[in-house]
Amino acid sequence: MTFKTDIEIAREGQKKPIQEVGARLGIQSEHLLPFGHDKAKVSAEFIKSLEGKKDGKLILVTAINPTPAGEGKTTTTVGLGDGLNSIGKKAAICIREASLGPCFGMKGGAAGGGYAQVIPMEDMNLHFTGDFHAITSAHNLLSAMIDNHIYWGNALEIDERRVTWRRVMDMNDRALRDTVTSLGGVANGFPRQTGFDITVASEVMAILCLANDLDDLKKRLGDIIVAYRRDRTPIYARDIKADGAMTVLLQQAMQPNLVQTLENNPAFVHGGPFANIAHGCNSVIATKTALKLADYVVTEAGFGADLGAEKFMNIKCRKAGIAPDCVVLVATVRAMKMNGGVAKADLGAENVEAVQQGCDNLGRHIANLKSFGVPVVVGINHFTSDTDAEVQAVMDYVASQGSEAILCKHWEKGSAGIQELATRVAEIADADVAQFAPLYRDNMPLFEKIERIAKSIYRADEVLADKKIRDQLRAWEQDGYGDLPVCMAKTQYSFSTDPNLRGAPTGHSVPIREVRLSAGAGFVVAICGEIMTMPGLPRVPSAEQIKLNDAGEIEGLF
Amino acid sequence: MTFKTDIEIAREGQKKPIQEVGARLGIQSEHLLPFGHDKAKVSAEFIKSLEGKKDGKLILVTAINPTPAGEGKTTTTVGLGDGLNSIGKKAAICIREASLGPCFGMKGGAAGGGYAQVIPMEDMNLHFTGDFHAITSAHNLLSAMIDNHIYWGNALEIDERRVTWRRVMDMNDRALRDTVTSLGGVANGFPRQTGFDITVASEVMAILCLANDLDDLKKRLGDIIVAYRRDRTPIYARDIKADGAMTVLLQQAMQPNLVQTLENNPAFVHGGPFANIAHGCNSVIATKTALKLADYVVTEAGFGADLGAEKFMNIKCRKAGIAPDCVVLVATVRAMKMNGGVAKADLGAENVEAVQQGCDNLGRHIANLKSFGVPVVVGINHFTSDTDAEVQAVMDYVASQGSEAILCKHWEKGSAGIQELATRVAEIADADVAQFAPLYRDNMPLFEKIERIAKSIYRADEVLADKKIRDQLRAWEQDGYGDLPVCMAKTQYSFSTDPNLRGAPTGHSVPIREVRLSAGAGFVVAICGEIMTMPGLPRVPSAEQIKLNDAGEIEGLF
Repeated sequence: MTFKTDIEIAREGQKKPIQEVGARLGIQSEHLLPFGHDKAKVSAEFIKSLEGKKDGKLILVTAINPTPAGEGKTTTTVGLGDGLNSIGKKAAICIREASLGPCFGMKGGAAGGGYAQVIPMEDMNLHFTGDFHAITSAHNLLSAMIDNHIYWGNALEIDERRVTWRRVMDMNDRALRDTVTSLGGVANGFPRQTGFDITVASEVMAILCLANDLDDLKKRLGDIIVAYRRDRTPIYARDIKADGAMTVLLQQAMQPNLVQTLENNPAFVHGGPFANIAHGCNSVIATKTALKLADYVVTEAGFGADLGAEKFMNIKCRKAGIAPDCVVLVATVRAMKMNGGVAKADLGAENVEAVQQGCDNLGRHIANLKSFGVPVVVGINHFTSDTDAEVQAVMDYVASQGSEAILCKHWEKGSAGIQELATRVAEIADADVAQFAPLYRDNMPLFEKIERIAKSIYRADEVLADKKIRDQLRAWEQDGYGDLPVCMAKTQYSFSTDPNLRGAPTGHSVPIREVRLSAGAGFVVAICGEIMTMPGLPRVPSAEQIKLNDAGEIEGLF
Repeated sequence: MTFKTDIEIAREGQKKPIQEVGARLGIQSEHLLPFGHDKAKVSAEFIKSLEGKKDGKLILVTAINPTPAGEGKTTTTVGLGDGLNSIGKKAAICIREASLGPCFGMKGGAAGGGYAQVIPMEDMNLHFTGDFHAITSAHNLLSAMIDNHIYWGNALEIDERRVTWRRVMDMNDRALRDTVTSLGGVANGFPRQTGFDITVASEVMAILCLANDLDDLKKRLGDIIVAYRRDRTPIYARDIKADGAMTVLLQQAMQPNLVQTLENNPAFVHGGPFANIAHGCNSVIATKTALKLADYVVTEAGFGADLGAEKFMNIKCRKAGIAPDCVVLVATVRAMKMNGGVAKADLGAENVEAVQQGCDNLGRHIANLKSFGVPVVVGINHFTSDTDAEVQAVMDYVASQGSEAILCKHWEKGSAGIQELATRVAEIADADVAQFAPLYRDNMPLFEKIERIAKSIYRADEVLADKKIRDQLRAWEQDGYGDLPVCMAKTQYSFSTDPNLRGAPTGHSVPIREVRLSAGAGFVVAICGEIMTMPGLPRVPSAEQIKLNDAGEIEGLF
């Protein structure tokens, strides 16, 4: 049996005009700003008119720690949205936008797969509606204004050695990681060492995704710390007078994007912050808008549940005043096998024992999610190579943990393959059993927040941090930043900080290498290990194969 | 009497849905890719379907050398388009897109003024339909792939000291003019000195504006010379295998943008290359598309006629196989006065003598334009402070040169103020009297082409160039680039290379400081004097005043 590729399936998709998709959510076409015939932004005016409306139910899709076997979190998010619609519920999907740069390296699309995809796939992986370009522009305008301020006399007394605001580009370009700028003489300013991050790592991205509206956006942009004086007092974007113009550059980007699934169901695709140095969720404004328009909103969080769901709960839900009514934890037989010690090349062969051995990674995620007071269902994303015995092994394990698992075949069959999960999720959400509570209080000291996450979620014995780091955290507390949540930057591949440690490790330490203050986004980043904020291209980048074919279709992008 | 500001007038404009505007040109709505309700791209498929259709008449609007008094070339282009429509002709306008970066420095809008404007003004000065962002991405993908190639072993044997391809950003950022990249150790590559230009200075911009279709675009992108080996042999973008992916990034940007004037007439706004190191005209594809759809197409060229019209004729028309049927040369009484020696502060007072003295700048442009075999009409763009005697002085002068001048009040009155010019332009174009010929043959040696322009257009006595520069030109001839036209990079403020030399100087020399080969765009750039390819921000950038007001409108951008 051969299967069609994702792109073949996506191209066969019968798209409806985006106005029809919007109409199903009650959005009149004058409030949809179209981008082509298949994408639109929902107007800020319309969103404002929704105030006071009752919210639908919120369903979070998260996953076990990712393995090279592939888990299919986005695919399941999309499939579950289609599934809910197919059983007669009014459901919408909220996912992140893809970054352009990595598509030219080796990353494939980020719009689901098989018969559970959001379309138009090509646009979503390229310029889409220009949101990331707007973020790049807003970020770099601030950068230019900082150097310009120094150039014209530096009235704010910025310490040129302590400019923390770098530049960004939506490109995998390792040559820009570490640069010296303003060379070439007097007319070009004062040479200093700086560099570029990829756009999704910009604090502007995190801010856009956490802001409630344009006023909130402007306030947060103004709160960005861009540099320090010699006396270590901070200089804000507001001091540089960049916040107004940055808001103007982002005005359009703040409006959520509406597209559709292969089954013509509404999908909001908006924002895409890093899941390590930022919180890894689609925008608050998209999620809140969807909750006003649909009875069920299915969304996802980046990486595995130890990072993505933790941040969804402790950062996004806390800040936005929302809470999940049900959590779906995606697992696969193949990933269990890899957690059980099987190499990727050997995944094709049945190995029930390895599945059983690998399930403790799943078990810990279940327990962690329950600790937030939310009901959890495991969605087993079926691969055609999975055997019945292997699937049953996962089912049995989940039952042994006092939870339930449901087999899903949405990749192969679309909504028809995921109706059982959709039915159960709707039941749970409707039962209003969730008693959501974040993991820590706002007023807990910053270092204790880090410890709470490390011990409760990662099950580490201890958090290691230099006096310098602890002093920094205390200094921020004294400056009034003590109420902020913590954003952990850790490997996604393990509960520990060692990416090779699969399963459910215990007894490990979490060393904090560095802490950063994202004063505009509103969190303190705790960096454990090396975090890459500007990727590079591989030896043979996929860009070499990307081209238009004779039919004008894009080849090689996926 | 007080006048409304441009932005006040623009905001009062009653926009029609862009589908209605397109319908007037016979574009069905399925072939208009909307961006919001007031902007759209014309589909490549539709453009292809126009092959074989008869072309309308092409009218070029150009101007005298710019002065601080302001000439109103774009305003006249827009006004003339409206004027032609108002006398019952089917006319379309083709102008350039504005660069985002300079809007945050001090530049105002680039969409005309008064009652002769293209709307939506805000969008056109910000992200518009994302074309410039796409160009930035395509350019920087190539940059990243070059450094990546070197990083992974440099199989092409690129001489790292001879990488000519820089990076671009659509921002005024002097700190990026001269940089060192790839610092920070082994993982970040080989440090080298390079820098950034503003996006409009990218060769990719020039290529997009000269390409006939996507195949031509890809070929030209592949032809870009990005670096040299130690033996001085060139390395092309094609060798880096970037041309396919760059074409994909530009696929959407290649489709012309349709917007409307305040009087709801169709305007194509597409592409915006520098008018010094590039040719300064809107895209060939927009102009050609407009010619298929309208009976009269009014377009403009950058800077004064000595640069803009010369390049329009010798580069754009030559490459695209098009020719103007009539040229409108824009002049103002105020500019004549400044050419006659009056300071800007004294422009308000009547001074007929100064007007008369300043007219020789106008006279030389008339003669130059006639030398291309095209009929010329002078359009006097009326300012409310102009006196009748001053206007008459210009009229008399133009008549003495065997040409005609027509007073236009489109800024104040819209199409009603420019019907006389519109009527005359249509008569001239319909008379088919133009016998267009470019200034030089393709096979003339490159240095002789430079001399031909300098002597015939600038009326210089001689062109000065080092042996090194002459040798370089000969080397390119031997490499097969001898047939390319020459793109002069010279001050826009004078016929000479001295920006302070107004009027119609003679006896000057044109020193060539540097020559560059734009092998993809298909021209050789001859640089006379300092050319800035990355602007800086002023002491108080306009960005500091740009913000959203309480009504959600943009303030401070114009």
